[in-house]
Amino acid sequence: MMRARIPLLLLLGILFLASLSVSFGIREQHESQDVSVSRGKNNPFYFNSDRWFRTLFRNQFGHLRVLQRFDQRSNQLQNLENYRVVEFESKPNTLLLPHHADADFLLVVLNGRAVLTLVNPDGRDSYILEQGHAQKIPAGTIFFLVNPDDNENLRIIKLAVPVNNPHRFQDFFLSSTEAQQSYLQGFSKNILEASFDSDIKEINRVLFGEERQQQQQGQESQQEGVIVELKREQIRELTKHAKSSSKKSLSSEDEPFNLRNQKPIYSNKFGAFYEITPKKNPQLRDLDVFLSYVDIKEGSLLLPHYNSKAIVILVINEGKANIELVGLKEEQQQQQQQDERLEVQRYRAEVSEHDVFVIPAGHPVAIDATSNLNFFAFGINAENNQRNFLAGEKDNVISEIPTEVLDLAFPAPGEKVEKLIEKQSRSHFVDAQPEEQQSRGHSTE
Amino acid sequence: MMRARIPLLLLLGILFLASLSVSFGIREQHESQDVSVSRGKNNPFYFNSDRWFRTLFRNQFGHLRVLQRFDQRSNQLQNLENYRVVEFESKPNTLLLPHHADADFLLVVLNGRAVLTLVNPDGRDSYILEQGHAQKIPAGTIFFLVNPDDNENLRIIKLAVPVNNPHRFQDFFLSSTEAQQSYLQGFSKNILEASFDSDIKEINRVLFGEERQQQQQGQESQQEGVIVELKREQIRELTKHAKSSSKKSLSSEDEPFNLRNQKPIYSNKFGAFYEITPKKNPQLRDLDVFLSYVDIKEGSLLLPHYNSKAIVILVINEGKANIELVGLKEEQQQQQQQDERLEVQRYRAEVSEHDVFVIPAGHPVAIDATSNLNFFAFGINAENNQRNFLAGEKDNVISEIPTEVLDLAFPAPGEKVEKLIEKQSRSHFVDAQPEEQQSRGHSTE
Amino acid sequence: MMRARIPLLLLLGILFLASLSVSFGIREQHESQDVSVSRGKNNPFYFNSDRWFRTLFRNQFGHLRVLQRFDQRSNQLQNLENYRVVEFESKPNTLLLPHHADADFLLVVLNGRAVLTLVNPDGRDSYILEQGHAQKIPAGTIFFLVNPDDNENLRIIKLAVPVNNPHRFQDFFLSSTEAQQSYLQGFSKNILEASFDSDIKEINRVLFGEERQQQQQGQESQQEGVIVELKREQIRELTKHAKSSSKKSLSSEDEPFNLRNQKPIYSNKFGAFYEITPKKNPQLRDLDVFLSYVDIKEGSLLLPHYNSKAIVILVINEGKANIELVGLKEEQQQQQQQDERLEVQRYRAEVSEHDVFVIPAGHPVAIDATSNLNFFAFGINAENNQRNFLAGEKDNVISEIPTEVLDLAFPAPGEKVEKLIEKQSRSHFVDAQPEEQQSRGHSTE
Repeated sequence: MMRARIPLLLLLGILFLASLSVSFGIREQHESQDVSVSRGKNNPFYFNSDRWFRTLFRNQFGHLRVLQRFDQRSNQLQNLENYRVVEFESKPNTLLLPHHADADFLLVVLNGRAVLTLVNPDGRDSYILEQGHAQKIPAGTIFFLVNPDDNENLRIIKLAVPVNNPHRFQDFFLSSTEAQQSYLQGFSKNILEASFDSDIKEINRVLFGEERQQQQQGQESQQEGVIVELKREQIRELTKHAKSSSKKSLSSEDEPFNLRNQKPIYSNKFGAFYEITPKKNPQLRDLDVFLSYVDIKEGSLLLPHYNSKAIVILVINEGKANIELVGLKEEQQQQQQQDERLEVQRYRAEVSEHDVFVIPAGHPVAIDATSNLNFFAFGINAENNQRNFLAGEKDNVISEIPTEVLDLAFPAPGEKVEKLIEKQSRSHFVDAQPEEQQSRGHSTE
Repeated sequence: MMRARIPLLLLLGILFLASLSVSFGIREQHESQDVSVSRGKNNPFYFNSDRWFRTLFRNQFGHLRVLQRFDQRSNQLQNLENYRVVEFESKPNTLLLPHHADADFLLVVLNGRAVLTLVNPDGRDSYILEQGHAQKIPAGTIFFLVNPDDNENLRIIKLAVPVNNPHRFQDFFLSSTEAQQSYLQGFSKNILEASFDSDIKEINRVLFGEERQQQQQGQESQQEGVIVELKREQIRELTKHAKSSSKKSLSSEDEPFNLRNQKPIYSNKFGAFYEITPKKNPQLRDLDVFLSYVDIKEGSLLLPHYNSKAIVILVINEGKANIELVGLKEEQQQQQQQDERLEVQRYRAEVSEHDVFVIPAGHPVAIDATSNLNFFAFGINAENNQRNFLAGEKDNVISEIPTEVLDLAFPAPGEKVEKLIEKQSRSHFVDAQPEEQQSRGHSTE
Repeated sequence: MMRARIPLLLLLGILFLASLSVSFGIREQHESQDVSVSRGKNNPFYFNSDRWFRTLFRNQFGHLRVLQRFDQRSNQLQNLENYRVVEFESKPNTLLLPHHADADFLLVVLNGRAVLTLVNPDGRDSYILEQGHAQKIPAGTIFFLVNPDDNENLRIIKLAVPVNNPHRFQDFFLSSTEAQQSYLQGFSKNILEASFDSDIKEINRVLFGEERQQQQQGQESQQEGVIVELKREQIRELTKHAKSSSKKSLSSEDEPFNLRNQKPIYSNKFGAFYEITPKKNPQLRDLDVFLSYVDIKEGSLLLPHYNSKAIVILVINEGKANIELVGLKEEQQQQQQQDERLEVQRYRAEVSEHDVFVIPAGHPVAIDATSNLNFFAFGINAENNQRNFLAGEKDNVISEIPTEVLDLAFPAPGEKVEKLIEKQSRSHFVDAQPEEQQSRGHSTE
């Protein structure tokens, strides 16, 4: 009887261990083409804004959230294990209190205006940022962020590259608020007294305010949290030196740059694609990241393409889209039977504001804007990345394959394949419901 | 009774977990020197061609195989976790259909001839490759490979450095064949129709051929697999622009280079050693890999040596050899008792055609050719690597140790040690059964 | 009944798995400030010399020890997984026998004098090293170390960066001693005879001495271990070419450099701080490591500061100190409840001679010397690291925050905060029990 039980329990143990490796469940069969489709939470490349962010801090003036680890979501994203995505949003006339982190940040303004101040032992620099502005904040740099606008929320996204641990970083705040302690409070009485050459009571009163708090009164009390309200005159004071408060003259290399000040690399009436690569910007070179900003009109399509070597993290800013990403069936990659047909898998997502979507390198993708859409993107491993389009006139890699090979690669004769490939006369962005085709109906040529 | 059972089950659980960390079994005691020997599948550095490759694709015209993960075979190879080895072999007059992968490849021709075409959105480049030719194929580059020879098989080995995941990569084929689906088939009807500005029926007919296939007839049918037969005139067409079909003028930096066009770095009547280092070639600099090609005559020995910092992956091309690699006893490294003598371990393998053998950095190795032998090798972490010989006249690091230290390091007086070290008058390659010694028999000096 | 048992056992299994992720136990509540404190073995940044080193070799003439893996101690140190720390100590008039390792070493002399000889196939270089001298030993380089002093022990610390595996490396010794086998002994009779063109008996006699050993007599016997005694004339012989025995002329780039020959970057009557950064030295640039040497007088304090991006490994050389390091509470980082106050954690250690302490990047730290103290430090990820002080006159990052922000960040009015921050008129090092404060007692201003 003992014997019978042990295998059962071992089996349970094995099942328990097996369940640790996340499985993405059921795939649907679809259309005449018989392709497996992963969607919703079974699509490991799609991070719904409501589900996959963890709140670090929230009060009435805004919040700070971090996206779940990419490598924990899917081992197909394992090479993103050193990257995290942070979202910050704050109400008009507010300040995010000074802090530093054990991570390099690449900050991008999605919406609204900001005054960003970087503080170093030899001075500080304040910059006015608007939508599309980006700035690297090196690890350990103390910074604070003002939303100087009277009406608009400020929305920022940061790519974080942690220093001490591949996937974790900490924000170190100077202030003690009701939401968290000042890191200065971590030192003992003796260290604090010697460091500030002052009595601990004075230090507590001035820096931590605990005594007063216990008294439950007085004006010198703690803030409610790390995002605080500002009065008009405080904003005026804090922004007046913006962009010129540095003691040392900064080379323009260290200053913020705006994605949308450039000419788009692709554009037509259906959309526009802006991009800054590591070659063009030293801050991006350091991180080996490209930044892009893409605008797609409702009912338009960013044509199927893939990035030759960059892994791209999209952050939807406004609008809705259907994204289709193509990979190989995951279980087949692992343990393909020799006589089994290797099948492709469609990873589909209906994305909307604040969602995140990851496009692995080499994986074909198409984005169909179901409303006016714009998104920002970080391209990891960006140096010498090439965007290879699979349809359209320009940058179409298939059209460079010689006819004789097309002839062998596809069932129709090479000339017919070429004709099909060259039919689309537009490039990069097209109408997602082309009139010509609609009027043509299902007639064959 | 319950109490008694739990520890037993916990014990089983622990044993089960322990069994996950691969153990390499039994070691044999050997010779008068009393050295542990690992061989066969207990030798974690030896990858028998029959056992350790996984077939990705195979038909009557050739095959594509990938070697098991190095880091899964032994944690002594953990720093190879980002590298995979792929073998491709194809029959005369065949084509490997166009595809790209989410990995950088370093391709080397082991045998036969090839026409390699790299396709980019701005043009394509075709190169004629022969034995010893190497070429980096950057991640995401579409390429196809012709075996233009009428008689000889083409054999290629690729070092793969995956982009999205440390140890996995995918091949993305444009064609739908009986063996796999086209990645274009992963997109939905709507995306395909808008992208190609054509009706889905037309697209299916021209690109995927599924309709015809269902009809089980017609000439426009799918290929049987990703390696297909070519007619003479197709080969003529595909090779006629080789080496000059690029629209942009390529610098010679991007072109293939041949390992055997160089002067060997070591050679005598027993063997020859060719090598290209990152210093000499920008493609290798990118990957920090050296390439070598070694020819050893039957009955000759590549003298004991070690690589100062490179981890070397040997791929046997022709012939047989005994390889002896020296490391420390693995269990001792982990949990050495303080008064236990630290012992060395011999990792021995009788390698033959297509086998793979890994030489970790710093580990002494000797290769004894039991028939005429040649092999190719990838050296990972190659920059400034130095090959330190432990015997022979030239490049012998032991002969640079001062006599006074030899005197202390070895039981015999320093002069006697020097005499022994300087006895071998040849360098790098020697006779594995020297006549002198054989005639001398077991007489002592 | 069966049902009832399974969940219990599963639960036990889960507990067992959970116990694998190291937990650092109990935290104490402390002082009026109510801060969690980790100390002793619950402080994962503190490596007590007695507990956390593993002995690799020890005899009457000295020892070689390796520190436990950082990443196994705490996942907060995971980015140190490629680094190991090795301690070597030897008696006067001794030699550490020639060997190489599959790791790059950065060697620093803590105490005593050494003659270090690096052997390469094209020559050798000997250097006389004294306290504060540092030298990179590239992976695979054979070296030996003489303690030429008649009285003083030699103490050396090495930072090791393994090549084949992130956290393991092996020392390959040429000599067979009673403590370990020569790696040459790993080769078979045939290979050895062909390599040295000699009979195996001769080889055994000269290199391994086993025959004699079995005879239990004769002068040609093995050494007792890898550290051996030297006679005066041997030392004279081995040191006479020191610094000039190289066949090729070495650029000064490859030569040892002394930390204490520089001007200190900070110094006053309480202490001195010496540092060499990657910018100033090519050997350090290769490894992206800075080196520092710090001297603190008894009763003095190195003011609270943090390193912007470097992870610092301190090795205490002489004296005692209290170190206070501030981080966030670890369990909170993992699974913070939204309405829970985020608290800081003090990591405190009373360090003494030979202890190791790690300071993660961005984490504030203060060092209070309870006796005359000096320590060495390796800074990992050193390029562009900045040391931001949180108190004192110079390099104080808090004093660069504008008054209006201080006003919002702290409970007291901005001017009062500024006054407190500017009270300490010294920089970097201060008196840990300032007289002024002591006399002032607990009076408030």
